[in-house]
Amino acid sequence: MLKGIPVSPGVAISTALFLESKSITTEKKSITKEEISTEQQKLEVGITQTEEQLTKLHQQLLDSVGEEQASIMSAHLMLLKDPAFIDEINNHIQNDLIDVSSAVQVTVDQFVKIFENIDDEYMRERATDIKDIGNRLIANILGKSEEKTIQPEGSFILVSDDLTPSETVTLPRDRVKAIIVAKGGKTSHAAILARSLGIPAIMGIGEQLAIEIATGDSLIIDGSTGEIFINPDAALISAYEEKQKEEQKEKEQLALLKDRKAVTKDGTPIELVANIKGPQDAEEVLEQGGEGIGLFRSEFLFMDRSSLPSEEEQYDAYSEVVKNLGGKPVIIRTLDIGGDKHLPYLDLPEEMNPFLGWRAIRISLSRPALFQTQLRALLRASAHGKVRIMFPMISNLEQIQEVKRILEETKKQLADESIAFDPDIETGVMIEIPSACLIADELAKEVDFFSIGTNDLVQYTLAVDRMNEHISDLYDHFHPAVLRLIKMVIDASHRNGIWTGMCGEMAGDLHATEILLGLGLDEFSVSPTLLPKIKHQLLQLSMEKAQQVAQHALSLGTPAEVQEYAIASHSVS
Amino acid sequence: MLKGIPVSPGVAISTALFLESKSITTEKKSITKEEISTEQQKLEVGITQTEEQLTKLHQQLLDSVGEEQASIMSAHLMLLKDPAFIDEINNHIQNDLIDVSSAVQVTVDQFVKIFENIDDEYMRERATDIKDIGNRLIANILGKSEEKTIQPEGSFILVSDDLTPSETVTLPRDRVKAIIVAKGGKTSHAAILARSLGIPAIMGIGEQLAIEIATGDSLIIDGSTGEIFINPDAALISAYEEKQKEEQKEKEQLALLKDRKAVTKDGTPIELVANIKGPQDAEEVLEQGGEGIGLFRSEFLFMDRSSLPSEEEQYDAYSEVVKNLGGKPVIIRTLDIGGDKHLPYLDLPEEMNPFLGWRAIRISLSRPALFQTQLRALLRASAHGKVRIMFPMISNLEQIQEVKRILEETKKQLADESIAFDPDIETGVMIEIPSACLIADELAKEVDFFSIGTNDLVQYTLAVDRMNEHISDLYDHFHPAVLRLIKMVIDASHRNGIWTGMCGEMAGDLHATEILLGLGLDEFSVSPTLLPKIKHQLLQLSMEKAQQVAQHALSLGTPAEVQEYAIASHSVS
Repeated sequence: MLKGIPVSPGVAISTALFLESKSITTEKKSITKEEISTEQQKLEVGITQTEEQLTKLHQQLLDSVGEEQASIMSAHLMLLKDPAFIDEINNHIQNDLIDVSSAVQVTVDQFVKIFENIDDEYMRERATDIKDIGNRLIANILGKSEEKTIQPEGSFILVSDDLTPSETVTLPRDRVKAIIVAKGGKTSHAAILARSLGIPAIMGIGEQLAIEIATGDSLIIDGSTGEIFINPDAALISAYEEKQKEEQKEKEQLALLKDRKAVTKDGTPIELVANIKGPQDAEEVLEQGGEGIGLFRSEFLFMDRSSLPSEEEQYDAYSEVVKNLGGKPVIIRTLDIGGDKHLPYLDLPEEMNPFLGWRAIRISLSRPALFQTQLRALLRASAHGKVRIMFPMISNLEQIQEVKRILEETKKQLADESIAFDPDIETGVMIEIPSACLIADELAKEVDFFSIGTNDLVQYTLAVDRMNEHISDLYDHFHPAVLRLIKMVIDASHRNGIWTGMCGEMAGDLHATEILLGLGLDEFSVSPTLLPKIKHQLLQLSMEKAQQVAQHALSLGTPAEVQEYAIASHSVS
Repeated sequence: MLKGIPVSPGVAISTALFLESKSITTEKKSITKEEISTEQQKLEVGITQTEEQLTKLHQQLLDSVGEEQASIMSAHLMLLKDPAFIDEINNHIQNDLIDVSSAVQVTVDQFVKIFENIDDEYMRERATDIKDIGNRLIANILGKSEEKTIQPEGSFILVSDDLTPSETVTLPRDRVKAIIVAKGGKTSHAAILARSLGIPAIMGIGEQLAIEIATGDSLIIDGSTGEIFINPDAALISAYEEKQKEEQKEKEQLALLKDRKAVTKDGTPIELVANIKGPQDAEEVLEQGGEGIGLFRSEFLFMDRSSLPSEEEQYDAYSEVVKNLGGKPVIIRTLDIGGDKHLPYLDLPEEMNPFLGWRAIRISLSRPALFQTQLRALLRASAHGKVRIMFPMISNLEQIQEVKRILEETKKQLADESIAFDPDIETGVMIEIPSACLIADELAKEVDFFSIGTNDLVQYTLAVDRMNEHISDLYDHFHPAVLRLIKMVIDASHRNGIWTGMCGEMAGDLHATEILLGLGLDEFSVSPTLLPKIKHQLLQLSMEKAQQVAQHALSLGTPAEVQEYAIASHSVS
C-alpha cells in the first residue's frame, strides 16, 4: 500500500497505466544557402500549427475548467508569437546554415540560458515555458507528436511522475478512472483540474511511485484518504466495490432530492443557487435542482478573444441564460478582470501585487464606456427574466454610489431610446474586501443584497495568497476572524432589510453549512454538482441548533478549533 | 506661475538650475585578434568600477532613506553580475572583433530588445534597468562620467525632466534648496526621497516646466501648495521670506518643547516614541525629545550583506541602541523580510503577490535556527536596558503561541548557560493584518502590548497596494473601516489590561492625532523629525473633546468625510 495526498475524492478500481514522456532529439543538419527559404517556410508552418494547438487547448481548458487554468496557455501563445524569438530562429537558419529544428533548439537553449541565469523565480519559470513551447514546435516541424502515449483502449488509472495542465485536459476523460501523480499537492494545477473534472486523484507520493507501480498493475485508490492498494486481493477488491456502490447509491439518492425545496428541518427556507461560468452551464443548474444562478461570471465573454465584446454580443449571452432560467433569478457579476485574469486587448499593466491591484470595479469605474456597454446589455437582458446585477471588489461607499449614478444614467438612456428593461432591477455588492464588511451598514442602504465572496475575503483578511504554496496552510475559511466578519455582514444586511448570500468556496464546504446557516446566511451559491449535497445537508439541519453552533463557533480562538467543532457538531446532526 | 503636485512641504527661494542628462555615444571600432584580451580586461575593470559605484549608492540610499529605495540598487547589481550578460559581451568582443564599449552596447541592445518585446510590464522595466547599467558601464570603460552636471558652487533649486533615485541621492544636499520635476507624483521614488531628506519638492508639472523655466531664473516654490513663481517681484519675494521665517520660527518653538512630557490639556499622559532603522538613528530620537523607541526595525542588520548576521553581531547592535537609550524602552521588531524586502542569501522565492506572501513571522517560524539566534541576541541585549520584543505579521492565535513557546525555550537555554537577560521581557504583537484586529481579544491574552502598523493594515483592509499608481487613490487611512478596526484593537487591549501603540504612518499624520487620541491610543511612534510636531499637537488637545471627535468620526461613511471632519475639528482645537 502507498499513501499520498488525497486531492480529489472517490474510489476507483482499475489497471495502472504508467505515462512516460517521449522526448524528442534533434540532430543538427547543415543546409545550403538555397535551402534557407525552405527551412524558414517550415518554421512558419510549424508556428501556425503550434498556435492552432495552443488555441485549441486554451479553449478546452476554458470550457472544461475555467479561466485561471486557461491563462497558462495564453502565456504560452504570447511567447510563441514574440518577434524576438522568431527573428532569432530565422537568424540562426540564415547565418549558421542549419536546419529549422536545430535552429529552434539553439534559440530555445539560448533563451533558456538567459532566463535561467537570472536570480529570479519568475524569470526561471519563463524558461520552463520556453522549453515547453520549443518542444511542441520542434515536434510539429518534425511531424512527430510530443504528447505522452496512451494505450489504445479500455479504462485505466493514470500514473505519472508529473502532469501538466495541457496533458490533463487532453486525457480521454471517459477512460481515465483516477489519477496518481508523484509530484504536486492539493493546490497544484493538475489537482484543481482533477477536482473540476470529478476524477479521483492522489498526489505527492514521491519517488516511491515509480518504484512500486508499473503499467498493468491492478490498483485500488481512495481519493478521500489518499490510499493506493497495489495488486490487492479479492477480498479487498470486493470491499472497495462495495464502497463504490455506496457512493453511487448516495449519488442516486441525492438525485431524488432534485425537486424538493431547500428547507431546514424546522421550516426555514434557504435559497440554494449555483455559480456558473457561461451560458452552457445553465442547463446543469436546472438539472441539479438549482433555484437560480447566484453568480454568473461575465468574464467568460471577454476572455479568449482579441477585442471587447459588443453590447449585442453581451446582450445575447446574458439573455440566453436569463431565458433558460425561465423566471428564476440570475445574479450577473460585472466584469471582474485584473488580478490573475488578464485581457491582452485591454493592455492592463503588470503589477507587483495583482491581488491588491487594479481589478474588477476599479477598472470598470475608470473605463466608463466599457462599463456602460455592459450595463446596457445587462439592463436589456433584464426584460427577459429576473436579472440581478452584482458589483465586485467594492471597498468603499463612494464606489457603489458612483456605480448607481452610472446605472441610473444608463437606464435613462435606454428609456429615452424606448428600449425595454426591468426598471426595478435589483443590485448587490459582492462582499470580498474586509473594509466592505466593516462598512456593511452603510453599503446595505445602497443595494438590494450582498453576496460574500469568501475566496478573496479570506485572502485579504489573513493576508494570504492561497495560490502561494509557502503559506497556503495559513489560508483557512474557518478562521474566527472570517466568521466574525461574515456575522457582521449578515447582521448589517438584516438590520437594513436586505439579504446576504455567499458565492465563495466556503458555501460549498459541507462542514461549514451548519455554521453559515446559524449565522443567518439567506442564500448559498455553489458549483452545480454540489447542489444536491448541500440540499441534503440543509434538509437535515435545524435552524435552532445551527444558531447555537454558530454562536459557539464565534467564541473559539483558532481556525483548527472551529473546524474541529464544526466537524464534530456536524456528525451529531 | 506654474502649479504642480506638492510632494514635500516647505518654502524655498533660490536660482533655478536645469539639470540635463549627458548622453554617451559609442563609435564602433574594429579590433585585431591580438587586442581581444586587452578589451576583455577593460571589461573586467569596468565591471569592478561599476560594482563599486552601485554598492556605494546602495549604502548611501540605505543610510539616508531606507531599504525600500536601496533595493533598487541591489537589483541593478544583480543584473550587472549576471553571467549570461557578461558572457555575451565577451563573445561579441571575441567573435565580432569589436571594442569593449561597442560590445557592451550591442549586448545591451540585444537584451533590451528581448525584454521590450515581451508583453509584460515587469519585463519591460527590466529593459530600463539594463539600459541604465549599460550606460554606467560604458561611461566607466570610456573614463567618462554619466552623472548629470551640477554647477560648481552656490545653492540652487534643482529643475529636471525626471530624476532617478541614484541621482537624487548623489545631489549635494546642502546646496539643493528644493526640487522641481516635470514627471512623477506623490508616490514616485524621487518624491519619497525628497520627503525623507526634508527638501521641499513639487512634481508632475508636465511639459510646461522645460518651456517656462531655464537655468538662472529666480524662483519661489511652496512645497505645501505646489506653487512655483518664476522671476517674482520684490514684494512676492519678501512675502515668502516672511513665510520662510515663520516656518523657521515654528521649528525653533517646537524645539523648546523637547523636554516637556507629552500630556493632553486635560492631563492624560501619552507615550511619544520614535521609529528607527538602525542604531545610528537612536541619537536623533533623544535629541528630538522621544521617550523611547516604538519600532526598531531589525532588518537593517540583515540587509546589504552576503550572509546572516551572527548572534554576536546582532547582540552588539541591539545592545548599542538599548544602552544609548539609557533605560528608556526600546521595541525591537523581529525580522520583517519578504514582501518587497529580499535577502539574496536567504533564497526566498519570487511570488505572485509578495505582500500576501511568505513574510516576517511566517519566515521566522519556518526557520527556527534563524529565529532563535535573533531571540537569543534580543534576550541578551535586554540585560542592558528596557527591551520589548514585537512580532510582525501575526494573523492567528497559534502563531503567537508558537512564538512564545520558542521564546520560553530560548530563555531556558540562556538560563542554563548562565547568560544574563531580563526574565520579564515584554512582548507584543504588531497589528497589521485584519484578522489580528478581529481576534484582538484572544491575542491580548498572550502579550503585553499591541502596536498597530497602519501601512500594511490599510493595504489589506482595503485590498490596495499603495505603491500601485493605478489605485493608490483608494489607499486612505481615514477609511471608516480602518478607524473601526483600530477601535476594536484598542478596546480589546484595554479590556485585557494591556496597551496599544501605533507605529504606522497614520501615527505621524497631524490630522489624525485627535481621532487616534480619542480612540484611546496609548502610544504614538513616529519618525524622529515628527516628534516635536506631534508633541505640540498633543499638548493642545483635550481628551474629552478628542473622544467626542473620535465617536463622531466612527459614525461617518466615507474616507473623505472622515478626513474633512478631522481637518475641520483640528482647526477648531
